[in-house]
Order: sequence, then structure tokens, then C-alpha cells
Amino acid sequence: MSQKTNVLKVLALVVLSVGLTTSSFAKEKVYKLKLATTWGTSASPLIDAAKNMAKYANEMSNGRLSIKVDSSNKHKSPFGVFDMVKGGQYDIAHSTSYFWKGKDINTLPFTTMPFGMTAPEQYAWFYHGGGLELMQKAYKKHGMLSFPGGNTGVQMGGWFRKEIKSVEDLKGLKMRIPGFAGEIMAKHGVLVTNIAPGELYTSLERGTIDALEWVGPSMDITMGFHKIAPYYYTGWHEPGAETQFLVNIKKMNKLPKDLQKILTLSMKLAAFDMYTQNYHMSALAWDKMTKEYPGIKIKSLPKEVMLSLKKVNDELLAKITKDNPFVKETLDSQNAYMKKAREWTKISDYLYIKDNL
Amino acid sequence: MSQKTNVLKVLALVVLSVGLTTSSFAKEKVYKLKLATTWGTSASPLIDAAKNMAKYANEMSNGRLSIKVDSSNKHKSPFGVFDMVKGGQYDIAHSTSYFWKGKDINTLPFTTMPFGMTAPEQYAWFYHGGGLELMQKAYKKHGMLSFPGGNTGVQMGGWFRKEIKSVEDLKGLKMRIPGFAGEIMAKHGVLVTNIAPGELYTSLERGTIDALEWVGPSMDITMGFHKIAPYYYTGWHEPGAETQFLVNIKKMNKLPKDLQKILTLSMKLAAFDMYTQNYHMSALAWDKMTKEYPGIKIKSLPKEVMLSLKKVNDELLAKITKDNPFVKETLDSQNAYMKKAREWTKISDYLYIKDNL
Repeated sequence: MSQKTNVLKVLALVVLSVGLTTSSFAKEKVYKLKLATTWGTSASPLIDAAKNMAKYANEMSNGRLSIKVDSSNKHKSPFGVFDMVKGGQYDIAHSTSYFWKGKDINTLPFTTMPFGMTAPEQYAWFYHGGGLELMQKAYKKHGMLSFPGGNTGVQMGGWFRKEIKSVEDLKGLKMRIPGFAGEIMAKHGVLVTNIAPGELYTSLERGTIDALEWVGPSMDITMGFHKIAPYYYTGWHEPGAETQFLVNIKKMNKLPKDLQKILTLSMKLAAFDMYTQNYHMSALAWDKMTKEYPGIKIKSLPKEVMLSLKKVNDELLAKITKDNPFVKETLDSQNAYMKKAREWTKISDYLYIKDNL
Repeated sequence: MSQKTNVLKVLALVVLSVGLTTSSFAKEKVYKLKLATTWGTSASPLIDAAKNMAKYANEMSNGRLSIKVDSSNKHKSPFGVFDMVKGGQYDIAHSTSYFWKGKDINTLPFTTMPFGMTAPEQYAWFYHGGGLELMQKAYKKHGMLSFPGGNTGVQMGGWFRKEIKSVEDLKGLKMRIPGFAGEIMAKHGVLVTNIAPGELYTSLERGTIDALEWVGPSMDITMGFHKIAPYYYTGWHEPGAETQFLVNIKKMNKLPKDLQKILTLSMKLAAFDMYTQNYHMSALAWDKMTKEYPGIKIKSLPKEVMLSLKKVNDELLAKITKDNPFVKETLDSQNAYMKKAREWTKISDYLYIKDNL
């Protein structure tokens, strides 16, 4: 064999080797994604769901999936994240579905509904009762995938400076309560006001407003409302508020299959984690509040008021579903599922707590 | 440059390339692990937690982590899985912690405790209240890591052919109720019997036993007890039974870091999934049972009986903790955490359900 032939053989081997090496290197390509949250940097546990998700994806992919999380402090557009992901400026959003009801009414029911399901009931609906499929259908026309992003549990009814003893007491009440619950309250004569979060404490303290709704102990504690309002009402309007990951579908499809799986399961896990984290934060915050302010009184709205709120809720929803068959399909699915799930909740968790009071 | 030098340079490149290629190929090595469950092939949702975990790990690792799940139908040793993982015949087990109290009393508290935490409370304790760290400590001396493996929610108190109206009614009652709850019952004069699962239905039907405890609607429905016992008692003894993954620590350490992460997070996710799946199965099973057998009556044990069971529970635990400081440390941690978490559960989920009855 001539030396020339040898050189050619060796070169052939090199090409083969380099080819193999390149294909292996190609597999190690880093996919960089950008995530925008509706929440600010200090909004635990909401912001933590996005951060945990990015961390999980990075660790499990050995760094191949790198997700940069921008809070609203950075991108300055808390309610612009839907459009930014739809338009491709960001790849993923962490926010919640009912914020988009003005853009597309079909997205309304995927956060929580007044008098609706609790977190465990709703997770069962999402993953085993057809909920996730309905949610994907709602977002498909916007070029986005949508996934549960973490639950706040039952949100409290809010902080009140005076007690509500009848439907009559709602008339003229000045209250900060946004969204659908605000509409229900407005129908009862409540003067629903819109005040920036930074001014809520002073407004409540000075009597500019008589009541306000925020989240629950986990996030209310830093706002300090418990120092100035003696009545903490139980929840009725957001019994299991689920946040949401939105993913640009084209960006998802560009990922290799294993990274698609890692991203999807990281979102699913970060969601459950947030529910657990919020449970923990709520327990500790409520304990601290009641130790420092033992005068806080837990109140439930009187039966008469609850029934009236529920009646108006049903009327408002009937107006929406009349012209929106997909909203009707979703609410029907939720209500049928809740009917079964609630019976189980009653004989398990509910009676267990009751028997041990 | 001589042709010889060229050949040497090319050879050097080949060696370099082959080196790179080999290291890239090495990364694609498939790690095969074997998992043994305590459960049989048809024991949904328990067995599904193990199967889902293996599926997640396989998909996210692009096939590099391959976990074979053997049910107890295959390995024939449902309660041998602790020793098989400890000894290295299997790498992972899916079972539950309180099964091992005879081997090591320190493992007792990590499934559920009578009058203890519900699933959301306990998950908060595991992941944010120090529970997971305590569990790892308990298993370290056995060369195993231990992780939550999925929750059954509140287990029902069982199916009874006759009503329990007083502590007196427990005397002479023939009941299948294993484990710690069985010891508490025995102290009340219950004749605790041990009957193979396959013979339970006939034993209850013929009156060989008066009552039995199984799981809850999700798993009770296939046993058929609702067809022959009219009273279904609410739970007190297993308010949030968590299953468990055990991993041989040497096998875990042999995995590359990213696969360790994938395995750990797949277990965590599969656990949450099982809780959700069980919620769903329970809701549907309970709905079906009550539709087909509308005569089933939900009963809670009378307050007097509950207080007596709790008293004996505390006495039995005091005997155990006296000689076992680690069990005391764990139970103290659980009780302190539950005290706070329960107050939150009461004003959130509990009052939300109550207000909407």
C-alpha cells in the first residue's frame, strides 16, 4: 500500500470521525428560551413557579435548555405577556388565564370560577376530566400551548372594616375587587373601585375604601391589611386560582422531542410545587398574623348573601354562554365534574377536618 | 512538510476526533435500573405512580434512563422490596414507609399518622417543613434514599355491617384493620383479624367479620364491599397516606448528575400525579357506588369514640417515643407543623366547602 493510499484512508477516517463528532456535538446545542411573567420579582410564590420551572428544565437537560425568566420589573408589561408570546418576542409566559377574557372570552374559565372547584378537584379535572384538552383548544387559535402553572388554593373573600350582615349591607360599600367577582359585587350596589396596589393600604386605613380583596395569607401578609381591618372573610369567588404557562407553539416545535418533554414536565411539576409552597406560606403567614393580631375575626358571608351572589354569578354566566358555545362547553364540563368531585371532597377531607374540630 | 509529518498530523487529528467521539458516545450510554413494587399489576393508582415515573424518566432522558418496573406478581415478594433494594437486587422500590416499622421503628411516621395531616398539609411539611430531610435521615443507615411516592388522600374508616354508637359497641367487633390502627382498635376490645384480600368479601358477607378497612372509593369499588355493608365510615386513622420511592444510594450515585436530577424529579412528579389520579378515581367510584347502591350511609364515629381512639393513639405513641428519640423528633415536627397548617386548612378549603353546602 502506498503512503498516498494510507493518507487517503486516514483522511477518510478523520472525515468519518469528525462527522460523528459533529453529530454528537449538534446534540449538545443549547436552546435558549425567554420567559416573561406577569408578576414582579418579589411576588412569591407566583414568580417562584416560573423560576423553579426554568431551574428544573436546565438541570434535567444538562444545560441544553436554558430559560431566562424576566419579571414584569424587567419587561414592564405585566398584561402584555399574552401578546408578546403570541407575537414571538417571548417564548413562554407565566400568568393566568382569566386576564385574557377581554381578548378572547373562551380563556375565562381556566383560572378558577366563583363557587367552583378547589385546587385538588380542579387538578383532577385538568388532568383526568378533560380540562387540559379544553384549555389547549382555547389557546390553539392564538398559536399557543397552555398548561397549569400553580395554584393559590382558596383565595380569601377579603379584608373588611365592617361586618356584612345582609345583602343590604353591600349597597354603597366601597371595595377593591377586580374582575368577574367585581361585576357580581357591582350588581349588588357595591362601589367597585380600582386602586393601585401601592395605595391600597392607605386607602383602607383612611376609609377611602371599606374593603378589599387580595389573595390569601401567603401574599396578604406583606400588604399589612390585617393591621387595620378586623374582619377577614372566607372565600367564594376564587376557590382554586390556577396560574398558567403559555408557550409559543412554533418555539415548542423547534425543540428536540426530549427537550419538549423536559419543558412540559418541568411546567407540570413547578405547578404542583407552587400549590404546596403556597400552602406552606399561607400556614405560616396566618399563624404569624393571628399571633400578632389576635383580634382578627374570620367571617363567612351570611347564607342570604352567598345565595344572592351565586344567583347573580349564574345570571352573568348565562349571558356569556348564550353567545359563546365554547365557554358553555367548558363550564358544563367543570360543573358536571365538580358535582362528582365535591361529593368525594365532602366525605374525605371535609368530614375528616370536621370530625377532628 | 514531509508526507510522513502529514500522516502523523492526520493521525493526531484522528486520535483527537476518536477521543471526542468516544466521550460523546459515552454520554449516550443507557443506564438500566430495576424497580420492584409492593403492589400487584392491577393495583391502580398505586402501581401507576411507579409506571408513570419510569415513563417520565425514559422520555426526558431520551432513553438513557431505562427503568423496568416489576410488580409483586413478578417478584413474588410484596414486603421484600425494602431488603431487595437495600441488598442491591433491585435499584428502586415503590411501597410505603410504615410497612417497615418492624425493621426500623424510625420509618413509621412517614406514610401517615392517625389524626394527622391531610395530603396538602403533609406535602407542605415534606417539602417546606423539614419532612423530607427527616425521612432521608431515617433511611440513610439502610443505604437508601427515600422520596414521597403519591398520596391516597383521606382513607375511609371502613365498611361496617352495623352502626357504632358508643365505645361499648367496639367490644367484640370482628374487624379486619391492619397496622397501627389495628392496635388502637384492639385496645378497645375489637377482635382484629387478619384475612387475605381475596377472602374479605365472603368473610364480610357471611358475617365472619363485622367490618373492614381497605382504602377509599378508588380502590374499594372493585372489592365490592358497598354491595353488602350499609355503613361507610369516615376516616381517622390514615388521613393522607403517602406511598414511597426507595432508591439504593450507591446506584443513584453511579448515575450522571443530569440523570440523577431526572430520576429525582420524575419521582416527585409521579407522586403528585398519583394524588390527582386518586382524587379522580375516588370521585368517579363514589358517584358510581351511590348511584347503584343509594342506601349506603356515610357515618362518622361518635365524638366519644373519636376521643377514646385519639387517647389510645397518644398512649401507644408515647410508649414508642420514650425509647426512640428520632421518632419523637419526627412526630414533634409533624405535630408542630400540623398545628399551623390545619388553621389554614380550616379557614380555606374547610370553610369554603361548608359555606357552599
